[in-house]
Amino acid sequence: MATPRNDMTSRSFSGGQSVPGHKPTTAVILAAGLGTRMRSSLPKALHPLGGRPMICHLVETAASVFDRIVVVVGPDMDALAQAVAPWPTVIQNERLGTGHAALMAEAHFGEGDVAILYADNPLIRAETMRALLRRRDEEGTKLALLAMTPGDPGRYGRVILRDGLVQEIVEWKDASETQREVTLCNAGVLCADAQALRRWLQGLGNGNAQGEYYLTDVVALAAREGAVRHVEAPASELAGINSRAELACAEATLQARLRREAMENGVTLVAPETVFFSTDTVIEPDVLIEPNVVFGPGVVLRRFARIRAFSHLEGCEVGPEAIIGPYARLRPGTRCEAKSHVGNFVELKATHLGEGAKANHLTYLGDSTIGARTNIGAGTVTCNYDGVFKHRTSIGSDVFIGSDSILVAPVTIGDEALVGAGSVITDNVAPGSLALGRARQTEKTGRGRAIRQSLLARKEQG
Amino acid sequence: MATPRNDMTSRSFSGGQSVPGHKPTTAVILAAGLGTRMRSSLPKALHPLGGRPMICHLVETAASVFDRIVVVVGPDMDALAQAVAPWPTVIQNERLGTGHAALMAEAHFGEGDVAILYADNPLIRAETMRALLRRRDEEGTKLALLAMTPGDPGRYGRVILRDGLVQEIVEWKDASETQREVTLCNAGVLCADAQALRRWLQGLGNGNAQGEYYLTDVVALAAREGAVRHVEAPASELAGINSRAELACAEATLQARLRREAMENGVTLVAPETVFFSTDTVIEPDVLIEPNVVFGPGVVLRRFARIRAFSHLEGCEVGPEAIIGPYARLRPGTRCEAKSHVGNFVELKATHLGEGAKANHLTYLGDSTIGARTNIGAGTVTCNYDGVFKHRTSIGSDVFIGSDSILVAPVTIGDEALVGAGSVITDNVAPGSLALGRARQTEKTGRGRAIRQSLLARKEQG
Amino acid sequence: MATPRNDMTSRSFSGGQSVPGHKPTTAVILAAGLGTRMRSSLPKALHPLGGRPMICHLVETAASVFDRIVVVVGPDMDALAQAVAPWPTVIQNERLGTGHAALMAEAHFGEGDVAILYADNPLIRAETMRALLRRRDEEGTKLALLAMTPGDPGRYGRVILRDGLVQEIVEWKDASETQREVTLCNAGVLCADAQALRRWLQGLGNGNAQGEYYLTDVVALAAREGAVRHVEAPASELAGINSRAELACAEATLQARLRREAMENGVTLVAPETVFFSTDTVIEPDVLIEPNVVFGPGVVLRRFARIRAFSHLEGCEVGPEAIIGPYARLRPGTRCEAKSHVGNFVELKATHLGEGAKANHLTYLGDSTIGARTNIGAGTVTCNYDGVFKHRTSIGSDVFIGSDSILVAPVTIGDEALVGAGSVITDNVAPGSLALGRARQTEKTGRGRAIRQSLLARKEQG
Repeated sequence: MATPRNDMTSRSFSGGQSVPGHKPTTAVILAAGLGTRMRSSLPKALHPLGGRPMICHLVETAASVFDRIVVVVGPDMDALAQAVAPWPTVIQNERLGTGHAALMAEAHFGEGDVAILYADNPLIRAETMRALLRRRDEEGTKLALLAMTPGDPGRYGRVILRDGLVQEIVEWKDASETQREVTLCNAGVLCADAQALRRWLQGLGNGNAQGEYYLTDVVALAAREGAVRHVEAPASELAGINSRAELACAEATLQARLRREAMENGVTLVAPETVFFSTDTVIEPDVLIEPNVVFGPGVVLRRFARIRAFSHLEGCEVGPEAIIGPYARLRPGTRCEAKSHVGNFVELKATHLGEGAKANHLTYLGDSTIGARTNIGAGTVTCNYDGVFKHRTSIGSDVFIGSDSILVAPVTIGDEALVGAGSVITDNVAPGSLALGRARQTEKTGRGRAIRQSLLARKEQG
Repeated sequence: MATPRNDMTSRSFSGGQSVPGHKPTTAVILAAGLGTRMRSSLPKALHPLGGRPMICHLVETAASVFDRIVVVVGPDMDALAQAVAPWPTVIQNERLGTGHAALMAEAHFGEGDVAILYADNPLIRAETMRALLRRRDEEGTKLALLAMTPGDPGRYGRVILRDGLVQEIVEWKDASETQREVTLCNAGVLCADAQALRRWLQGLGNGNAQGEYYLTDVVALAAREGAVRHVEAPASELAGINSRAELACAEATLQARLRREAMENGVTLVAPETVFFSTDTVIEPDVLIEPNVVFGPGVVLRRFARIRAFSHLEGCEVGPEAIIGPYARLRPGTRCEAKSHVGNFVELKATHLGEGAKANHLTYLGDSTIGARTNIGAGTVTCNYDGVFKHRTSIGSDVFIGSDSILVAPVTIGDEALVGAGSVITDNVAPGSLALGRARQTEKTGRGRAIRQSLLARKEQG
Repeated sequence: MATPRNDMTSRSFSGGQSVPGHKPTTAVILAAGLGTRMRSSLPKALHPLGGRPMICHLVETAASVFDRIVVVVGPDMDALAQAVAPWPTVIQNERLGTGHAALMAEAHFGEGDVAILYADNPLIRAETMRALLRRRDEEGTKLALLAMTPGDPGRYGRVILRDGLVQEIVEWKDASETQREVTLCNAGVLCADAQALRRWLQGLGNGNAQGEYYLTDVVALAAREGAVRHVEAPASELAGINSRAELACAEATLQARLRREAMENGVTLVAPETVFFSTDTVIEPDVLIEPNVVFGPGVVLRRFARIRAFSHLEGCEVGPEAIIGPYARLRPGTRCEAKSHVGNFVELKATHLGEGAKANHLTYLGDSTIGARTNIGAGTVTCNYDGVFKHRTSIGSDVFIGSDSILVAPVTIGDEALVGAGSVITDNVAPGSLALGRARQTEKTGRGRAIRQSLLARKEQG
């Protein structure tokens, strides 16, 4: 939900570019995971959330907080590298653990603070990232980490505190009964000075059952040198995505967030749980959205627009007091002006529908411009495609297009023209003209009944 | 849900008109609230619930219980006054609190009992209102009020009981720790004798931080004169609507109530949480409703009708064993007779579809009458609108309308007639006739391939 | 969900046919209930679950575990007997209780083990049935029964254990306070040796308030002769269906099971709670299903197929990388090949859509064959029905069907042909030809404006 984004200003303040005198910050995103439990041929980080690869959410949020981003990918993940461009990627060729993965990005640590994030934690919020950086900045803090209190702590590593400082992270399998009763869990995300982190990572051992280098082990190394502090964030933000079921949970978390934001901004959602947003949907107050509406990317809705049930919108702008649906599909490049109507089983693609214009039934308008107050009859189709090229249809104001008309583009219909129902329009129509293109009606008395009776007779004979 | 309304008789007994010897009852509805947290330019009481302004629900319920209703509105709320007409409204010009608002309606209190209700508590049920009136009628009761036990009592005022009587209402901010542990909360709704209430309201002070007159303060005044009793009602009925999120919650409560009533009446809802009713939807037993169906106002469904997925119905009657959908839209004034079929991407408006008639694919029938057993082919469109006026189409029984036909109204097609596919029908067709209105097919050998190759060649050249 | 069914092999091992040396097993299904609380004229066992009569689920599961099935029905339940055919039915003419109902099937008990199941427990799983049979096989076990621990034990009979064996079943009304605190409840399902069960059933009395023979009473008889053991199964599997609300709950349980299986198999469900499966839906990994999709029976989806929002599929196969929807309806007999596209408001019935072919807008294709790479324009309709018979349309490869064309079947369009927009095609078109069947456009200057002005003038005059 991108309406009156209150965090826009804070974003441009804190993120994106280096502020003079500001210590540089780098986010390392670990994205080499294959996600075996996803049972997919797609890298885990490319699975969709809110209609786009989950990595894109994390990169977008991180870019609003950190100066630089570097993504650690696995071998043969070119599509992933493209998805995060222009941010650089490094390849982890061997799967030797999270500590090893983080070390792959060492050359990109630079100076300042480095945070390690995970591609399968895409819903972490900018304010949480900022809180982590602020915690790291506190006097004497060698390392700051994110913790959470999940409903079921299960087998998460436990964060053991003493006097408010992190004493150690105990893995579940190594934890005592008492330690397992601790509900504060390690989320894996941490932040430290680049140089120290580099040193700790290089000092990690792999003397464990898996023979892997664990990033978590740097916490113990940091604790020897100074304070380790934590920030607690909601578990819903930090829940990992390792299966399709967890992916669906993350989508539900994201949608709940977007729906809540929309309602807080003054949008009526009759049945919030049936409306699916994109993260960039922009909705002004007093818009009403009926049940079962799906928003793809790039939608803007103006005040008092009403989106009726079973509608599907992407890449379009809907003007004030316009009524869309039920069963309307608006595709990219469409703009419906104020008080326009788009009705049932109507598809608009790259079409500009003028103020107060109407296309209410069973219609396809593609690559078209429709003037103000023009009425498009039921069953109208623009033939914008000749099998190879696309062409435009231009219709003036106060035009009446009779039902079931076909407009073969490129074609222009002048203002106040009238096209008779059932016409095939291949040539331009002058303003004010009546255009017809249909056959005359003929009638054969008794022939209808005769045909019917002969068919029924044949049926009876089998 | 309005099917076999078991409370119809009790309604006409208890509400609406004065019964001889019956003490008159008046409901004062406080509706002046702007609802700042709604972030809306619409008064809060006009926000929709179940498809109509929330005030209408409360007025309808109150009208079934009380003899008279008066609504207190804010300045410039003419639309609200119209929505509650013919019940009178009084205007509260200054926002000086609920006690002040109630006093504005003083001239309408009359004799008998007066209850104070709130526009943002629209889901209160008639039986709850009646229980409140009965409690007020109990010997020695000066005032009766509604209480509730919400899941989270939060900052609600607590109802302090002693020996079953209400001793006082303590506002949360004034409550002791012990009093805050009380879970019985004040819902604000109360009922008292008109004369006494008038006196108490006039005696209210505004010596509080807000400088407002609080209605709740009449409880203390009443308790000095006699017993104050309470009725406990479900919190879901009494939860206030102050934000779009709370509006969505109220809608969910209302829909859950309507779905439960439908199922109790013998209706199968495959996925109840995906079906949205109006409060006046009437459904007979053994109707089956598939997932994702939306009902606007004024729908009646007869036995064994089947409403398939993704359908949208308003202002229509569906006869026994009719099959509607998937993706069917029935608009006001439509009646589908027994065993008729309306299929996918079909819209009917003010249309009478005869017994066993079928309109199964991609069709718009507006202002039409279709006879029994008639078959309407795919892509049929009635041209009922000439840009200014609407005209009717009348089709007889046992007619076959070929696909993609256009019927330019006003037009009449006789029984057993046959209209050839792709015809534009502008003149009446006699019973039993075959009507055609389409061009002959011509063919240019090799020309199709040539056009395609030339287009592809042009594309190649860029 | 029928994808990589891991239990296929175990099914064919344990169920269906007699294995040499294997003790025969018989399932008796009690299905005579009228289901008064359903408020229906349909027998309870015929109410739909997952799109087919609930009895079919139970019979299918039982058939995968038991050698034989016999169903006890009430009088005048021929439709139920047909639904379970070829398994035999016996009629319980008098409603004298579950013990009496079970005894009606006595002649079908044969040798070996007999389990008593209930038509209104249709979601019991095969592994639960097998666990019951195995428990019965344990040394010294005279009877095995299913127990559960529901969230609210309510008025269920309590299972009283001693040393792990079932000591007795105490009905709620006969239970002491201590016994009511027991949370293990009787599910009613039991299994015993045919001969013993026959004897116990014959020994049942009806000396209770209802004057009925209770099946549960055989537990006490069995306990006198040897060990009674129990198997605990999830309450969701064993919850009875006695009302439409409970039917909706069972549907929700079934759908949750199918959605979880799909996700475990590598299918992405963007919003699982909005997708409705049939039990036989087969989906390969990496298929993506958007919100609001309904699957009827007989659907197969291949790898990387994408089913967009608001689609409805039944009896069809969708090839790899095909894109279906939004708002697409695929009906039985349809097969969409790899990379084909079916767009909005498009219905396909018994149609074969070739590789890479497209039908993207407002189209009805029935009884058709469409070649590879062919493009079907918006608004195309196949006239496959003459009112009595259905006919086929055959379209070649690389064909371009212009928008709003009508193809009157039987008709054949050759490869690389081109049909002009708005044509009515009644005759075959040769490969490579251009076919047209539409009227020429004519224009009357100024006439459009004149008609409009005269209509507006008439409107003004009223």
